[in-house]
Amino acid sequence: MRVFAPASIGNVGPGFDVLGLAVDGIGDVISVALTDGPPRVESLSGRDAELVPRDPARNVCVIAATAWLRAHDDPRNPIVTIEKGLPLAGGMGGSAASSVGGAYAAALAADHVPEPREVIAAALEGEASVAGRHLDNIAPCVLGGLALSRSVDPIDVAALPVQADWWVALVTPAVRVETKAARALLPDATPRAEWIQQMANTAALVHAFASGDSALLSRALDDRYAEPRRAQLIPNFHAVKKAAVDAGAFACTISGSGPTLFCIAEDEAAASKASVAMQNAFGIATTAHIGPIARHGVRPL
Amino acid sequence: MRVFAPASIGNVGPGFDVLGLAVDGIGDVISVALTDGPPRVESLSGRDAELVPRDPARNVCVIAATAWLRAHDDPRNPIVTIEKGLPLAGGMGGSAASSVGGAYAAALAADHVPEPREVIAAALEGEASVAGRHLDNIAPCVLGGLALSRSVDPIDVAALPVQADWWVALVTPAVRVETKAARALLPDATPRAEWIQQMANTAALVHAFASGDSALLSRALDDRYAEPRRAQLIPNFHAVKKAAVDAGAFACTISGSGPTLFCIAEDEAAASKASVAMQNAFGIATTAHIGPIARHGVRPL
Repeated sequence: MRVFAPASIGNVGPGFDVLGLAVDGIGDVISVALTDGPPRVESLSGRDAELVPRDPARNVCVIAATAWLRAHDDPRNPIVTIEKGLPLAGGMGGSAASSVGGAYAAALAADHVPEPREVIAAALEGEASVAGRHLDNIAPCVLGGLALSRSVDPIDVAALPVQADWWVALVTPAVRVETKAARALLPDATPRAEWIQQMANTAALVHAFASGDSALLSRALDDRYAEPRRAQLIPNFHAVKKAAVDAGAFACTISGSGPTLFCIAEDEAAASKASVAMQNAFGIATTAHIGPIARHGVRPL
Repeated sequence: MRVFAPASIGNVGPGFDVLGLAVDGIGDVISVALTDGPPRVESLSGRDAELVPRDPARNVCVIAATAWLRAHDDPRNPIVTIEKGLPLAGGMGGSAASSVGGAYAAALAADHVPEPREVIAAALEGEASVAGRHLDNIAPCVLGGLALSRSVDPIDVAALPVQADWWVALVTPAVRVETKAARALLPDATPRAEWIQQMANTAALVHAFASGDSALLSRALDDRYAEPRRAQLIPNFHAVKKAAVDAGAFACTISGSGPTLFCIAEDEAAASKASVAMQNAFGIATTAHIGPIARHGVRPL
């Protein structure tokens, strides 16, 4: 059975390592068969497929699928088929989606309908192997919508209410930003005024999604920590951001560790208009996707 | 006309300078008359009245009332009557309540029914004269319930949804903690892991109040910044906190900059039980109050 694991936006502006937002219509498609032999990648296709490790010991989908099986005392190993819809390191939750898809598909292959928490725990093993122990992409990929990661150890996540049918545009310039390089730009210690503002914006963002208050969203989706430091990694960052807002988007910033930028807009037409404006402002090759906030996370196709 | 301005809990655990919670049944009662002469404090009674400055230039209630009048081009001055229900520096929002009450009563005296934002702006002038430019007590005192202060300049606050009819116990030991001294214990720069956890807990706390999830409240009402550093100012802090939780409260921590501790509990009986346990654990003279989360902020009596 093939499963679809949607794209996700890590951080969602101020919510560094804490918030994530699932976006529908683009993601990775995974299927898993079980074997008594060694694990392997059966097939790997789609976006950035040539960059994804085929070595099962380094493939996040295999690692997550295996983690799910071991957690359920299943001695079998996964044979995975991966259709990548998401770039490997674009800031669209590609490694999380492959991990989540692997864990979920392994569960279905073993005739379980898994609990979200089980999928999250297994997917974390995959994600951790390439991107550190973070749940800000895994949680929305599993739960859908806006998700909160309060704690990784122990896992404590929540699906947060989303009142409005907003749409998202994701625009990825043809430059590569590695998560580790993007992290290296960020200082460890942060002055109080800065993190208090970040915390206030994150709390306000949660309320903006819950209440559908787009004006509050515009004010709260304001990242004072990562965005000012990572903007240099993204060509024409400030022009692209301005173009999105000038085109009517509520707000625009970096998705995860970039280089993808995302904006949130009222509806499909507004997201489409902002997406075109962002692509034009980049002035280099880009790929773009628009989709509604995903109401559901990983699911059978 | 006399107005009632309720007690409020600043920070509400992790939400340093960002969240505040209004508690009903205890507060300051203020009335204002207008004069063409100089401003003055007509009468000052109640808790800690002997410690409240009668000098109108240093009295937060007079300052806030005057600020409201000036903001509305009213050349008159306030004559204020203050019945203090809240301690001067107890961490129960006493200066905020006197400021809010002064601004609101001045508006009523001038035959205005003021907008919340106008009251907040004027009250901030009073609060700022003694406690800095913070809205974490003023916002809940005006709006009621759980309030978010996203920004002070410009003022950006929101009333957050509160799903459950939880009760609060406030227990104040007979020691004095000045806000400035309590602030001096707090470092300016904070490591990333610490503020991310604080931010995650604050976002989770907002969701716990909105959803009525008391188990999440227990996990999220966990302050990693101020509590560990200020606990030393409060006699038997750890024993009192443990006593509250052992008695059935969801969580217990410092209210504002202390020395008041507060806990949140299921209902009146649970708050009462926790309050007694906390008073016993303090082992010194205390005053205690229990009340429901205030559904409304400042209002005419």
